[in-house]
Amino acid sequence: RYCYERNLAVNPQGGNTGLVGGSVPVFDEIILSTALMSRIISFDKVSGILVCQAGCVLEKLNEYLGEQGFVMPLDLGAKGSCHIGGNVATNAGGLRLLRYGSLRGTVLGLEVVLADGSALDCLASLRKDNTGYDLKQLFIGSEGTLGVITAVSILCPQKPRAVNLAFLGCQSFAKVLETFTTCRAMLGEILSAYEFMDEKCMELVEGHLKLSSPVTDSPFYVLIETSGSNSTHDEEKLNNFLEQAMTSGLVTDGTVATDDKKIKASTWFIWISLIHQMLWSLRERITEALTRDGYVYKYDISLPVGKLYDLVTDTRARLGRSAKNVVGYGHLGDGNLHLNITAESYSHSLLDAIEPFVYEWTARYNGSISAEHGLGFKKKQFIQYSKPNEAIFLMQHFKAMLDPKGILNPYKTLPSSS
Amino acid sequence: RYCYERNLAVNPQGGNTGLVGGSVPVFDEIILSTALMSRIISFDKVSGILVCQAGCVLEKLNEYLGEQGFVMPLDLGAKGSCHIGGNVATNAGGLRLLRYGSLRGTVLGLEVVLADGSALDCLASLRKDNTGYDLKQLFIGSEGTLGVITAVSILCPQKPRAVNLAFLGCQSFAKVLETFTTCRAMLGEILSAYEFMDEKCMELVEGHLKLSSPVTDSPFYVLIETSGSNSTHDEEKLNNFLEQAMTSGLVTDGTVATDDKKIKASTWFIWISLIHQMLWSLRERITEALTRDGYVYKYDISLPVGKLYDLVTDTRARLGRSAKNVVGYGHLGDGNLHLNITAESYSHSLLDAIEPFVYEWTARYNGSISAEHGLGFKKKQFIQYSKPNEAIFLMQHFKAMLDPKGILNPYKTLPSSS
Repeated sequence: RYCYERNLAVNPQGGNTGLVGGSVPVFDEIILSTALMSRIISFDKVSGILVCQAGCVLEKLNEYLGEQGFVMPLDLGAKGSCHIGGNVATNAGGLRLLRYGSLRGTVLGLEVVLADGSALDCLASLRKDNTGYDLKQLFIGSEGTLGVITAVSILCPQKPRAVNLAFLGCQSFAKVLETFTTCRAMLGEILSAYEFMDEKCMELVEGHLKLSSPVTDSPFYVLIETSGSNSTHDEEKLNNFLEQAMTSGLVTDGTVATDDKKIKASTWFIWISLIHQMLWSLRERITEALTRDGYVYKYDISLPVGKLYDLVTDTRARLGRSAKNVVGYGHLGDGNLHLNITAESYSHSLLDAIEPFVYEWTARYNGSISAEHGLGFKKKQFIQYSKPNEAIFLMQHFKAMLDPKGILNPYKTLPSSS
Repeated sequence: RYCYERNLAVNPQGGNTGLVGGSVPVFDEIILSTALMSRIISFDKVSGILVCQAGCVLEKLNEYLGEQGFVMPLDLGAKGSCHIGGNVATNAGGLRLLRYGSLRGTVLGLEVVLADGSALDCLASLRKDNTGYDLKQLFIGSEGTLGVITAVSILCPQKPRAVNLAFLGCQSFAKVLETFTTCRAMLGEILSAYEFMDEKCMELVEGHLKLSSPVTDSPFYVLIETSGSNSTHDEEKLNNFLEQAMTSGLVTDGTVATDDKKIKASTWFIWISLIHQMLWSLRERITEALTRDGYVYKYDISLPVGKLYDLVTDTRARLGRSAKNVVGYGHLGDGNLHLNITAESYSHSLLDAIEPFVYEWTARYNGSISAEHGLGFKKKQFIQYSKPNEAIFLMQHFKAMLDPKGILNPYKTLPSSS
């Protein structure tokens, strides 16, 4: 209210872990930090509904829930510092989306401070509520441009008793896709992640971070996670799937790590609990390896899964030797590709070769130019590649209605009205 | 556009299966039927994404998907006649919500005709898309008052290979709750429905419909469904759970029906595939039995699960002999109670005894006065029991912005602005 009366612009900031500059002030905005709002308000063990303030750190929430036998329905690489308020404001995706769905389904309520300083209380703790329009949805993914989220009510699943990992090598992207279909059929309800990375990614994590992979010499690698309530059943499902995948030649090499404490050895299984973390590192630390490789151009793209890797191949062919590395990895199960291009240093001509090429390519296949990271400051002018003009126009109307003075996270998400 | 230019009001109508009069014209609206828009536009077997027109009947879609090894993420008693467009417009809940979540998570895109006749194309087929505000969410659950849904893109899960049912008797509502907690822990990821009904419901389906229950003499009955990818594993989980529930006295009697074709008999198991339908009938045909019992006052309430049945007890005590029957049943796993009161005929004094009592009771425990059926024409004036004034005010603003002439499904969902 103080800012509204004085026409002062506000830049909400949580853990400041974003990709597109959504939480970074542009000119002279006041930074409104949620860091001190870190209280857990309530948790109901029967329904699994958690209510907490916006500044709670994701990993802290997960630890708190773990003690009660539950987990957060989302998991991100940035979990150690990102805030739940920021996660909701950006509609964060992450590693568990394949299993537990998006925040649009799991967030049950929000408390939001509007531009004029008044609080909108939609902090319901109910799985079902069809009384009027679902206002909270507008604030999910609006990147702080329509209101500042101050508290969140979220549905949390039970903590799985058994978590197993498999790290596999595939000889082509077609086999990565076929392995996905097979594993979804055979692992069914226990499949909780299906991640892929190409051999360039592997070279970078091995070269820059000195990680070593138990599976080598494959153009593609797949990380599969299962989460379930019965370790014997889960292992049996995973073994059946792996046998099928190996026999049919979908997968040429693989390692499995189960929760099981006992250690067994066979030709291509290594049963050991410690390698869990190591296997996830290969996938989660790609970002870090890229940073060490040079200047990074980052793209977070949604595409129909069948087309997913063609964008990497086409971009690589287009850029030729002007780029150092062109790599692709991501949440294949969700149709989400992280395309990254590295170069010795930033170059305007390289950027011109990449953009709008990548956006046009994505638009041609009805993809999204921002799958899970939002538009923020850096990508707002490219929204038209993924949304029709009528939709952008309507969004601008909502913005004008909810924030008439334009003081909430200005210069973000939407292009300025013309 | 025709109607907009001539100031003619429009009442969108799908299968006309609603509870609150949302699809019934009030005065002189033109009925806009989606019945002829029944084309399936596309289905992608890798991602499970279905795109279809709004007039497709839910059951037809489910049959179509079944042939491809998938199912719709929602299932309702009215599936034989309700349209997917109406399901989305009312944010329908139903029997699979516990497992696959709400339509806010599974609906990926919509095509909507706005009040001025223009079409808004948000028909994306992507699991993740964070480019700008998620406009489609406003139309989900807005009961046709902000726009008319003409096409839907929806994420469909794989068809489970094994479906098992258990029908159990519990001696108290506390045991119903404890059984839920136990079964969620032991069945985990395969639990797909947890429904309950009280003994009054059972009397009505037995008396009016001549159905017979394999489990008798219990104050409460629970219907549990599991859906999974491996029938051996699922049966083992279910049996372990039942043994635990019987041993600890949570459950006093029970019947189990598995997908398995072979028939086994034991003291309290009857393994037979045919009784699936019979067991579901006991739960699904309660509505029909109520209709035969007299005039029915129907309430669709969300409450914290622990409080769920207290509303039935309190209402029964309050109404005493002025009501014929006061019954409670519903989707316990979602905290959703269907409270129904029957009488020989409609009486204004009985209605006065029920309302606003039921709404005030619900508001006291931060419940929702419409969990899954919307507000429509009959309940719009009660919205303030579940939403604060600021929220209602904002909803009215959205309505005025998107439908300035008020021609879309007038007199529905929101109280008129003051």
